[in-house]
Amino acid sequence: MGKEINYPNQSKKIFAITTPTMPKRNYQKANLGANFENQINDSCAYYLQKGIASIYKKPTPIQIVKVDYPSRNKARIVEAYYKTPSTTDYNGIYQGYYIDFEAKCCHSTSFSFGHIYEHQIYHLDTVERMGGIAFLIIEFPLKQEVYILPSALLKEKYLLSLQGGRKSISYEEFKNVGYLVKKGFQPPIDFLQVVDMFIEKRNNKK
Amino acid sequence: MGKEINYPNQSKKIFAITTPTMPKRNYQKANLGANFENQINDSCAYYLQKGIASIYKKPTPIQIVKVDYPSRNKARIVEAYYKTPSTTDYNGIYQGYYIDFEAKCCHSTSFSFGHIYEHQIYHLDTVERMGGIAFLIIEFPLKQEVYILPSALLKEKYLLSLQGGRKSISYEEFKNVGYLVKKGFQPPIDFLQVVDMFIEKRNNKK
Repeated sequence: MGKEINYPNQSKKIFAITTPTMPKRNYQKANLGANFENQINDSCAYYLQKGIASIYKKPTPIQIVKVDYPSRNKARIVEAYYKTPSTTDYNGIYQGYYIDFEAKCCHSTSFSFGHIYEHQIYHLDTVERMGGIAFLIIEFPLKQEVYILPSALLKEKYLLSLQGGRKSISYEEFKNVGYLVKKGFQPPIDFLQVVDMFIEKRNNKK
Repeated sequence: MGKEINYPNQSKKIFAITTPTMPKRNYQKANLGANFENQINDSCAYYLQKGIASIYKKPTPIQIVKVDYPSRNKARIVEAYYKTPSTTDYNGIYQGYYIDFEAKCCHSTSFSFGHIYEHQIYHLDTVERMGGIAFLIIEFPLKQEVYILPSALLKEKYLLSLQGGRKSISYEEFKNVGYLVKKGFQPPIDFLQVVDMFIEKRNNKK
């Protein structure tokens, strides 16, 4: 989701801020997937509270350039820039497995590879090769559906795109080869149900 | 750039900055363990490059309050504050295990519990209960030694401190019940050697 922040072709004034605890960035993201992110965060909080899993969103990486100290106990950052994330949005532990995923909100019916970094695709692949469970979770608000695409399929499609194939993954492809995630009240997005299927598959292979 | 900053409780003149890519904060941290952090980061980079493990430092969490758009393609954060981290410094995957640890540099011969958040101690404990490998890694520059303390021992000592026990863990205790980490050239801090011992212990219990 990190990539959806710096919109060069948009108005500079996005939203007004009301309080210092509610940063502009969240407002800007409100139309662009913050709701989805909040739902995943709420799901993670639910899993943690129930002792099911410990999965967290990583902080957005910031390059800090200048810090002021207006009062004696509070550092104020006065110049900083968004950095490219090294890895993915979320990671943690579930059923003893290392879990790692990137979350995206797709406002069309096709997910362009321009919305994910190549090194993130490779990171997910590395995790999977090391025995973790890695995937892309994607929301299609137009369809009101959420899908999980295992990292192996994501990588496969990405490599095809590099060889002249399509530069995007269509909603139909997610529907055909991805896994629909059940939405509900608690947790709002029960992505661990799909992870359970992945774990079952692995155990069957053993 | 190059302006003096008022650091609370410190000399006003700290260091001059040379380039915008080297934030002042890192200079400030230079005395406080940045070298240790860099050595761990280098070790993680080495492990990753060799395909041994994928472990990353989490970005410092920042609360962003105000963002400007001075040019069309670069968002500049002009007001932000450091936030309390939800979890710990590092996490990732090794040998299929979820790895999670907090890194500290201790400039005396006693590590005070004031230097770690209670919720971080509980986070490490949660990870361990869920089947991950969680610990505190600590450098004693005065002794030129690095120790790993498993989260179970950290929690035990912390709980004792709440019941009127010592509010710190001495260097001797780390020496007695912790695990000395071998230092070298590549990786500079070979903490996975200690993790190997933890994994072996677990396998022997099975």
